[in-house]
Amino acid sequence: MVPHLTTALTGPLLDLERRFLDGMPNIEHWFRTKWLEYPVPFYASVDLRNSGFKLAPVDTNLFPGGFNNLNPDFLPLCVQAMQSAVEKICPEARGVLLIPENHTRNMFYLQNVAQIVTILRQSGMRVRIGSLLPEIKSATQIHLPNGNDLTLEPLVRKANRLGLDGFDPCVILLNNDLSAGAPDILKNLEQAVFPPLSVGWFARRKSRHFANYDSVANDFAKLLGIDSWLINPYFSTCDQVNFHERVGEECLAAKVDEMLKKIRVKYAEYGVKQDPFVIVKADAGTYGMGIMTVKDASEITGLNRKQRNKMAVVKEGLAVSDVLIQEGVYTFEQINEAVAEPVVYMINHYVVGGFYRVHTTRGVDENLNAPGMHFMPLAFDTHCTLPNPERAPDDTPNRFYAYGVVARLALFAAALEIEAAESRQTNK
Amino acid sequence: MVPHLTTALTGPLLDLERRFLDGMPNIEHWFRTKWLEYPVPFYASVDLRNSGFKLAPVDTNLFPGGFNNLNPDFLPLCVQAMQSAVEKICPEARGVLLIPENHTRNMFYLQNVAQIVTILRQSGMRVRIGSLLPEIKSATQIHLPNGNDLTLEPLVRKANRLGLDGFDPCVILLNNDLSAGAPDILKNLEQAVFPPLSVGWFARRKSRHFANYDSVANDFAKLLGIDSWLINPYFSTCDQVNFHERVGEECLAAKVDEMLKKIRVKYAEYGVKQDPFVIVKADAGTYGMGIMTVKDASEITGLNRKQRNKMAVVKEGLAVSDVLIQEGVYTFEQINEAVAEPVVYMINHYVVGGFYRVHTTRGVDENLNAPGMHFMPLAFDTHCTLPNPERAPDDTPNRFYAYGVVARLALFAAALEIEAAESRQTNK
Repeated sequence: MVPHLTTALTGPLLDLERRFLDGMPNIEHWFRTKWLEYPVPFYASVDLRNSGFKLAPVDTNLFPGGFNNLNPDFLPLCVQAMQSAVEKICPEARGVLLIPENHTRNMFYLQNVAQIVTILRQSGMRVRIGSLLPEIKSATQIHLPNGNDLTLEPLVRKANRLGLDGFDPCVILLNNDLSAGAPDILKNLEQAVFPPLSVGWFARRKSRHFANYDSVANDFAKLLGIDSWLINPYFSTCDQVNFHERVGEECLAAKVDEMLKKIRVKYAEYGVKQDPFVIVKADAGTYGMGIMTVKDASEITGLNRKQRNKMAVVKEGLAVSDVLIQEGVYTFEQINEAVAEPVVYMINHYVVGGFYRVHTTRGVDENLNAPGMHFMPLAFDTHCTLPNPERAPDDTPNRFYAYGVVARLALFAAALEIEAAESRQTNK
Repeated sequence: MVPHLTTALTGPLLDLERRFLDGMPNIEHWFRTKWLEYPVPFYASVDLRNSGFKLAPVDTNLFPGGFNNLNPDFLPLCVQAMQSAVEKICPEARGVLLIPENHTRNMFYLQNVAQIVTILRQSGMRVRIGSLLPEIKSATQIHLPNGNDLTLEPLVRKANRLGLDGFDPCVILLNNDLSAGAPDILKNLEQAVFPPLSVGWFARRKSRHFANYDSVANDFAKLLGIDSWLINPYFSTCDQVNFHERVGEECLAAKVDEMLKKIRVKYAEYGVKQDPFVIVKADAGTYGMGIMTVKDASEITGLNRKQRNKMAVVKEGLAVSDVLIQEGVYTFEQINEAVAEPVVYMINHYVVGGFYRVHTTRGVDENLNAPGMHFMPLAFDTHCTLPNPERAPDDTPNRFYAYGVVARLALFAAALEIEAAESRQTNK
């Protein structure tokens, strides 16, 4: 079952997908040369939006949850990609210490952790899970709804090595996005840590990612001879915003207005009839907190107290001061009247699957990754690596190939972002 | 559907598979370090025999046919492995020239060629097929039984570059085993050729492969603390044999006798009740020609004219002079009363699938890859990368993991063989 696009597919996207198909040897060659030059992130997931006229990433997660939502048939692909990641990034490793988020009650998340453990084990690694939670004082078993068990153990640090009781791993794999900062126990370790602490959400900025994506998308658009806007959402930022105290609203309103104008020009160029909108969200942080849809700059200056409170804090109660204004991309993929948004998963630089976030109660111009809101995950039933140029560009395997291409562009932007973050770290 | 082992699985193999499962992190680490040191063959297939007490390779094909016999569900795994092969071996390549065998009427073989083309295309390469056949003077389309088409084109050599009309490939991929020698048109090319000409069957010797396998199996057996005989068939050779003229029969008979004695000792050690047997075959050449099963040395000296004629020539009518004597390994895998022998496929160092050769008319001590004899291919329905140590060692995914391990040992032996062949070539 695959969501159908509600727009008639005769517009720019069909042309875009056709160019992806025709350009496949060039595209794959381009990616290969990039991965020879730049270290690839260990794993990542990318949220895409497909408006029928534009296909773009809207968020890139370097600490991906949701592996449990992938099609179980794709497990061998995950295992093979994991073997290639280990071979490329840490060939000498035998033991991996996985550090998850501190959600001991979120069974959806814990099933994701269990799935990552399975993938690592099947690829031949010894894996144990170390918890940052102070209340985990001894090995603690958690029973998962799918019948499996997960054991969380307390971290043990000896000089500059991190491990568990009786377990001295070669590599630390983070599935914790470090929203609250990098804990001291993770700092200055002898062992390699993936992803590096420098791209924890305490330090990461969406705007840096999208600045990198901007240059990646421009290069790629040149390669294919397309308008980069078709795969690249506009963005800008305001800093020193304080929603509580209504500081910075003018900056925000002005940038929103400017962006809506730019989008309107593009919509006119491509004959798009919809109303442009922008997404205003915290530049740091994740979990879909502090996010709003804006179709007119006046909405920014007219926020009521409740709305301002909602925008003011993100995960771990952190106050928002840097704000990202991002071009809104409609999601015109629907399944049984519900809005669907694809999320693509990668290990090393291989696309290993994905799923749709399906929402029955949200609109086509809203963020679908909201806290407390339980989307229905719908696993991709088709691989992203089986395009068939002889079929129509919107044939499912071909649409999925396009997803995989755009997701890998975001992955490459993340690689540049990690490189820059690491070099800032070194120069400190 | 998976063949069942007709022996009660309580013997050494169950113990072997258990050690494979328990040693998985060490095994995968061992392979990783090997692939960092040695160039991996582009692709290969390995014929295995599983006697319930012994699991061993009996033939390693560096120009594998039969990709069409793999489970279609495993195509994404093949594509991903092909991407990794290209990335590792020829990252700059965009265009691949595939050179197949000269069988234009063998539809089974041509479907294999079509499948290799599909895998290469899906992994983002431009692919065209160049034929060594002199009668292919212009692009010739062949219709395949599955509805697909294949186009064979005449090779065009310009100075030291090989291509087709309008196609200048970066890489030449051979699916032609060069039994009759390396044609001049393939010599001294600027482009990389995989596998290299130096391991074409005109130059390759099975005994060299098994000498390499011997040292690989011994190292590996040390790693796991097992008797290497459990994964390693005895072998020896006689040269200057002439079956027509009954020259060299004494050498053969003596070596056969010696080997049968050695096997008898091992069978006694492991309580195996079966009669030992050896396989006598041409040291060069393939296609299951010139092969016989021998249970007593007297059979060698008592060959009648018909049998001697059968042994005297292999593919392309080449005369046999070097002979390999190899320990016979019973195949005790059966499906509906028919004998089954697993064949494992690898691209780069990844196991991407396999199939069983199923024969209704052959015995458990006979070669199942015989000319003119149409075995039934039965695709593996389980991946070779999903072992589960919590299940029994002979649980299907675990048995398949063991297949993948032994096949990769043979692949590593092939890597050593290629390295040696290339250095002999350079020193000439």
